[in-house]
Amino acid sequence: MTASHRPPLKIGIAGLGRLGKRHAEQIALRTRGAELVSACSPVAAELGWARESLGVQTLHEDFAAFVRDPQLDAVVLVTPTSLHADQTIAALEAGKHVFVEKPLALNVEDCERVERVAARRPDLVAMVGFVRRFDPSYARAADDIAAGAIGRPFVVRSQTCDQNDPDGFFVRFAPTSGGIFMDCSVHDIDLARWLLGKPRATRAFASGTIALHEGLRPLGDVDNGMAIVEFEGGQRAVLYASRTFAHGHDTQTEIIGTAGQLLVGQGGARDRVVTSDANGVHRQSVADFFERFGIAFEREMQSFVACCRGEQAMSLELSDATQATRIGLAITRSLHSGQPEPV
Amino acid sequence: MTASHRPPLKIGIAGLGRLGKRHAEQIALRTRGAELVSACSPVAAELGWARESLGVQTLHEDFAAFVRDPQLDAVVLVTPTSLHADQTIAALEAGKHVFVEKPLALNVEDCERVERVAARRPDLVAMVGFVRRFDPSYARAADDIAAGAIGRPFVVRSQTCDQNDPDGFFVRFAPTSGGIFMDCSVHDIDLARWLLGKPRATRAFASGTIALHEGLRPLGDVDNGMAIVEFEGGQRAVLYASRTFAHGHDTQTEIIGTAGQLLVGQGGARDRVVTSDANGVHRQSVADFFERFGIAFEREMQSFVACCRGEQAMSLELSDATQATRIGLAITRSLHSGQPEPV
Amino acid sequence: MTASHRPPLKIGIAGLGRLGKRHAEQIALRTRGAELVSACSPVAAELGWARESLGVQTLHEDFAAFVRDPQLDAVVLVTPTSLHADQTIAALEAGKHVFVEKPLALNVEDCERVERVAARRPDLVAMVGFVRRFDPSYARAADDIAAGAIGRPFVVRSQTCDQNDPDGFFVRFAPTSGGIFMDCSVHDIDLARWLLGKPRATRAFASGTIALHEGLRPLGDVDNGMAIVEFEGGQRAVLYASRTFAHGHDTQTEIIGTAGQLLVGQGGARDRVVTSDANGVHRQSVADFFERFGIAFEREMQSFVACCRGEQAMSLELSDATQATRIGLAITRSLHSGQPEPV
Amino acid sequence: MTASHRPPLKIGIAGLGRLGKRHAEQIALRTRGAELVSACSPVAAELGWARESLGVQTLHEDFAAFVRDPQLDAVVLVTPTSLHADQTIAALEAGKHVFVEKPLALNVEDCERVERVAARRPDLVAMVGFVRRFDPSYARAADDIAAGAIGRPFVVRSQTCDQNDPDGFFVRFAPTSGGIFMDCSVHDIDLARWLLGKPRATRAFASGTIALHEGLRPLGDVDNGMAIVEFEGGQRAVLYASRTFAHGHDTQTEIIGTAGQLLVGQGGARDRVVTSDANGVHRQSVADFFERFGIAFEREMQSFVACCRGEQAMSLELSDATQATRIGLAITRSLHSGQPEPV
Repeated sequence: MTASHRPPLKIGIAGLGRLGKRHAEQIALRTRGAELVSACSPVAAELGWARESLGVQTLHEDFAAFVRDPQLDAVVLVTPTSLHADQTIAALEAGKHVFVEKPLALNVEDCERVERVAARRPDLVAMVGFVRRFDPSYARAADDIAAGAIGRPFVVRSQTCDQNDPDGFFVRFAPTSGGIFMDCSVHDIDLARWLLGKPRATRAFASGTIALHEGLRPLGDVDNGMAIVEFEGGQRAVLYASRTFAHGHDTQTEIIGTAGQLLVGQGGARDRVVTSDANGVHRQSVADFFERFGIAFEREMQSFVACCRGEQAMSLELSDATQATRIGLAITRSLHSGQPEPV
Repeated sequence: MTASHRPPLKIGIAGLGRLGKRHAEQIALRTRGAELVSACSPVAAELGWARESLGVQTLHEDFAAFVRDPQLDAVVLVTPTSLHADQTIAALEAGKHVFVEKPLALNVEDCERVERVAARRPDLVAMVGFVRRFDPSYARAADDIAAGAIGRPFVVRSQTCDQNDPDGFFVRFAPTSGGIFMDCSVHDIDLARWLLGKPRATRAFASGTIALHEGLRPLGDVDNGMAIVEFEGGQRAVLYASRTFAHGHDTQTEIIGTAGQLLVGQGGARDRVVTSDANGVHRQSVADFFERFGIAFEREMQSFVACCRGEQAMSLELSDATQATRIGLAITRSLHSGQPEPV
Repeated sequence: MTASHRPPLKIGIAGLGRLGKRHAEQIALRTRGAELVSACSPVAAELGWARESLGVQTLHEDFAAFVRDPQLDAVVLVTPTSLHADQTIAALEAGKHVFVEKPLALNVEDCERVERVAARRPDLVAMVGFVRRFDPSYARAADDIAAGAIGRPFVVRSQTCDQNDPDGFFVRFAPTSGGIFMDCSVHDIDLARWLLGKPRATRAFASGTIALHEGLRPLGDVDNGMAIVEFEGGQRAVLYASRTFAHGHDTQTEIIGTAGQLLVGQGGARDRVVTSDANGVHRQSVADFFERFGIAFEREMQSFVACCRGEQAMSLELSDATQATRIGLAITRSLHSGQPEPV
Repeated sequence: MTASHRPPLKIGIAGLGRLGKRHAEQIALRTRGAELVSACSPVAAELGWARESLGVQTLHEDFAAFVRDPQLDAVVLVTPTSLHADQTIAALEAGKHVFVEKPLALNVEDCERVERVAARRPDLVAMVGFVRRFDPSYARAADDIAAGAIGRPFVVRSQTCDQNDPDGFFVRFAPTSGGIFMDCSVHDIDLARWLLGKPRATRAFASGTIALHEGLRPLGDVDNGMAIVEFEGGQRAVLYASRTFAHGHDTQTEIIGTAGQLLVGQGGARDRVVTSDANGVHRQSVADFFERFGIAFEREMQSFVACCRGEQAMSLELSDATQATRIGLAITRSLHSGQPEPV
């Protein structure tokens, strides 16, 4: 019996907010070898959506009951960040593979607790959702670097910039997001480590400003922030995060090496259409990270399922998530202290 | 019961060459609401592949038996062009929905025979594979034009240019392909008609040259051809087809209107990576139409299935295929006669 | 005494319309080794401008007197096309170097008359203003082709497209312009011949349409035209000319060879600024050919002066202008006859 | 008598190294209203070049004699940075207009000494060579910002990156250059101040690495450096400088505002040619800042002459140079101390 004929991986999802719904649809409708059999949410309407739209049969309000369900092979956690660590541990202890959205936690201790539990269950997959690694362009960049296309990479410049939301939804979300760097830049941090060959970070310096959303000021957060991260081998990362871009979601990453450089994603073109009219020659940009990384979300979940089924080795490790959190926290401390902070 | 919970559409595929295999994988692995239950090929190895790789249970060497299989709801025909018309008719007469690859036929009479049979079975879907209409960029261009973004469109310039195959595989295929314009430009012709609002074509003029593949000369074919098509309302199409491009597959289309223009697909960028090195600033292009139109193939099959299941109305009509063939033939006659030919 | 210390070339200009004024300023203010000493125009205000703005001392209403002025070394003719041939001959017979704007004439006989007179004065420079050859990008393309960068070039696609002038100034000018192909495409024809290695043209086919300017219909002219030119060695040119572009002046040329292709000028970017805002990511285009070819006009005049002073050999020959006219006329005949016309 | 007919400004140039020669040719051959009448250099061969190539009649080895020459209206100083301040003062005291290359000095005290002297001679022009302000693209960006195109600008990201010189010429030059930030980033600092509306800088943080040129290590310099500058109103600048780029000289600047952003110069395209071949789709980049800013150098000198002749008001002020030096020094201190430094 070939891989594709084996029984599907039975997955339960916890958390059905905006991103949770995307993952749920992904698993139910577009992931080979997987079946979405269960959902967990404290919100009745969300559970109703899972049943009506996706035909999910088993519905839970209570996470503890959800995670113990013996029919489940794996759980996908798209819950608030503050719950990630404990829920991941509970799932591993219940013998389930786990996919958990980034960041793994807002402190290093929680990350390390998860790592310790996971170390005792090497038979289980525990994967953090650094979705950009599954984007075809980032994947090609990594392959090209590994093949020596740019010599030795030594600087990464990376940005995560969201289109401005005049309603400032994220301001209300800010108290629990960990701040702009933990929320947005954690992806760039993971990319920088990955593409630079995982050097050890030593120091971080950050600065920031509020361009539009004064509601962030009492929280100590900013809507535009920049940071420099120093690594042991002399490598450097320069990060930028913004909540206030006018033209769309613009995630881009530049990797500079001794023999060349790669630029991934510049401008965030929505598609292959160029319009020329009285306003000049123009392209539309993607509206948000869902649109930019739609294919990456597909490939990410496909990869998780393949790992759970033993068809593929894990490329993402839990320690990557711990390191991303560690660096993100140092950057955030620097934003508050005004001084470079040790990682 | 919502749409997604209904029993899947049972599909059989005939023809398992390079493109046939892609369609088969598509249906078996990535098309919601469909099941690939049967395959037909005169080549035993191809049937073996369908069984081994995709788990297809019912296998036929004989098309007549294949098409009469009562379990089938629909057939997908990826057979040689010369068989398209008769097989489509046979399938319709057997009460099956039909998806048939382009071109529908190499003569207008065959196209019209199919149209007549299809007219007697309005309950069945008969769709020709003009895959570019399902590409997100072409789809957006069509939407923008419909919304008036470029005023009244009056010129389409469109090219289908393949990367040179030094082995000249297509030369061996040329005797049955109908020539470069029927094989490549038929897509551009359909795009031009679609994006110009389906005006009636009146005349065509073509010219061509052999840049590399002298083996085409005895066949009256060329490896680079250009044509001008005139439409009744004054619209014009300028077409270009090449078998000899150096940098990759480069399909692009420009639609010029009274208030602006749209350019779709220029350069055929493979992904979002730009490399800067001692050779300058460069991008890779897609290697072939599979890579360029991978997502369009997915959306095309998804749309066919949705039409068969009554969830979506057909946008592609058989008469579109007839008109594309009619124009393609006039262009081809002009290449041979050296004179403009009436459509 | 080195070149730069020799006495300047004394130039007179005839014709002080829009383009004439540009040339006059060019010569007076930005051309090394040249001095603008005389001007000729039937329009008193234009002569006044030359005296006031540029300090030109000698002013003529009468061309015959102008051209005989013994102080002149060279004349620059920016007069109506119908006068080009006779004035060029008069200047050569008066012993002056001549720079004459394109096209040299609207019939081949006039071109050949000029060629014959010029052949008797090999000591004099006679240069036609195919300004694009002096554009740095076109010059680099020619160099690259000569160096084999794209193998053997066999197709040129070239367009000259002007931003729409809602006032339709060019409609009033149309009766004497020779039509869209003689007025606009003559540049593309010269580029195609130059970049393809000057093969002999054999046939031309043209088509066209009126998108906006109905005033052209009684004149047999169009505001958008396309043509295919066939050359003896199998090379082909595909030309496009438009008067109705929305985004600006967009002159571009693609040269396709057996090993690659060059694209010059696409989109007509005005400068190096990219703006990203609520309208997407956009660039401005140049407004007109003055803006696009400003530097080329400088280099062209500098080259003319250098040729006159014997510091540089002529690259442009009068026969190039004759051939461009010959091909342009065949295209224009084809537009009217609807049939391919021999060149 | 109109402006263009007045006697030319008589200019003397001091310093005839690589950049000095460019300025000398510029003045002698391409600057309207100016005449290069004198040159000063301690190197006999350079003076010989000025006489032979440009016909300069008056030649000095001694600066004191050069600057007192009564025939001179203005001097252009392209001498080593350490001499800029004293020579500028000497020229002003001799009653000459002064153009001096950037940076004005490597310490703030010298800048302020020059400012004090200049304040006593408001009749004289004293201009520092921030050439990028005269680049058409930067000029258009400034105009667009002034017109409100991007709302309120609050972040500038700017880089000056040179193509790697394997011979490491700049390493030998490093001991007197002031380091990578004073040598390269001083332009970006001036651009940032200019485009942000000249806010007061408060702090700077820098980091850097040596990618290729170990010879810099004993000097405390780096070949790749990045910095964050904080301004009083919350504006931020992020700077990057590199000596090791593979593809060419790549100067680019991004100005981010509350309603959009401008990107100037990205990729440093050499011209309008795009090549597509077996290596993909590629463009060449400019080789160095001369090629990138050739037109800006012309416009800069033209502007200096126009200011001296009273035809134009100065836009660049000496205090801009002082501020650029002040910020550059704070960045350099931070590179050495590892801590943010007050400006």
